[in-house]
Amino acid sequence: MQLLKQRILQDGKVIGNDILKVDSFLNHQIDIKLYNEIGKEFKKLFSDKKITKILTIEASGIGIACITAQYFDVPVVFAKKSESRNLDSDIYESEAFSFTKGKSYSIRVSKRYIQPDDSILVIDDFLANGKAVLALKEIIDKAGAALAGVGIVIEKGFQDGGRILRDMGLDIKSLAVIKSMSGGQITFL
Amino acid sequence: MQLLKQRILQDGKVIGNDILKVDSFLNHQIDIKLYNEIGKEFKKLFSDKKITKILTIEASGIGIACITAQYFDVPVVFAKKSESRNLDSDIYESEAFSFTKGKSYSIRVSKRYIQPDDSILVIDDFLANGKAVLALKEIIDKAGAALAGVGIVIEKGFQDGGRILRDMGLDIKSLAVIKSMSGGQITFL
Repeated sequence: MQLLKQRILQDGKVIGNDILKVDSFLNHQIDIKLYNEIGKEFKKLFSDKKITKILTIEASGIGIACITAQYFDVPVVFAKKSESRNLDSDIYESEAFSFTKGKSYSIRVSKRYIQPDDSILVIDDFLANGKAVLALKEIIDKAGAALAGVGIVIEKGFQDGGRILRDMGLDIKSLAVIKSMSGGQITFL
Repeated sequence: MQLLKQRILQDGKVIGNDILKVDSFLNHQIDIKLYNEIGKEFKKLFSDKKITKILTIEASGIGIACITAQYFDVPVVFAKKSESRNLDSDIYESEAFSFTKGKSYSIRVSKRYIQPDDSILVIDDFLANGKAVLALKEIIDKAGAALAGVGIVIEKGFQDGGRILRDMGLDIKSLAVIKSMSGGQITFL
């Protein structure tokens, strides 16, 4: 997606060799017009798939998932990271590891919101080691639902998440795949 | 907002006397069509105000803020609750207390994303004790920006947040104000 790649080159900031800050437009301050273009692009890329629900993880996936859901005309469910007094005891749970935060965490989805007849599109802002997508897949599997595809805004192509997930046969579509950020220079695949 | 009140009566679940679960349509599974109506209603209610940015707190505020921002044609900024390796060290910080989670937490916004000339609409899903809005106000004040208004989806009118904030002169607009939930019976103001 050319518009996104241009924006990453223009406003993205590389820290060290593996962290890309895009918080001026993607995951802290949010450019809603860009989100709309991202949503339209996901709809185009997954137009051949039957999608009944979009699943993401809090927090930065939520906005992208909500804007994208408008183009699919389906509900969003977001997996919760922390224990809430308001969450059902009747939940699907799995473990993920955050590359950005350097720690593992459990994610939870109420059993009421994923059904065996659901065909689910997973949406997330970043794909690095693939652990978040694997955790969401585990929840979808536990529910007996189908994982129709995975839409990623930015894939770190130099980490192995994308390869692992594609080797499992998952339909991963990333709007921008970064080949390298070494020396602060971003190159796309 | 009639559509929202009907939905709360139909799908909301009262736990004890003070917790309202609306996770089937508002803050776990999300009805995007309802979010669109909520966004349009906020635009109508704050149409007389100059708004340059929408500010919310992760996680459940983000989706509502993003959908609403489409009607105001402004960016969203969401305050982060946890320390991230990716967040600027140059941040505004304040403390809030979550009624739902029963604990206090700090919220952070990068100084780059709120400017003195910003006129900000705060959006959140719930208003109970008002601590989240007060924490966001503190950040807006520190940035020297203006708090133009506060749009709340559900206000717990039997807690004192709404009164405290209105007594401070803030322009609080809630789409549904709950007068009482005692005995599991929801009545609106």
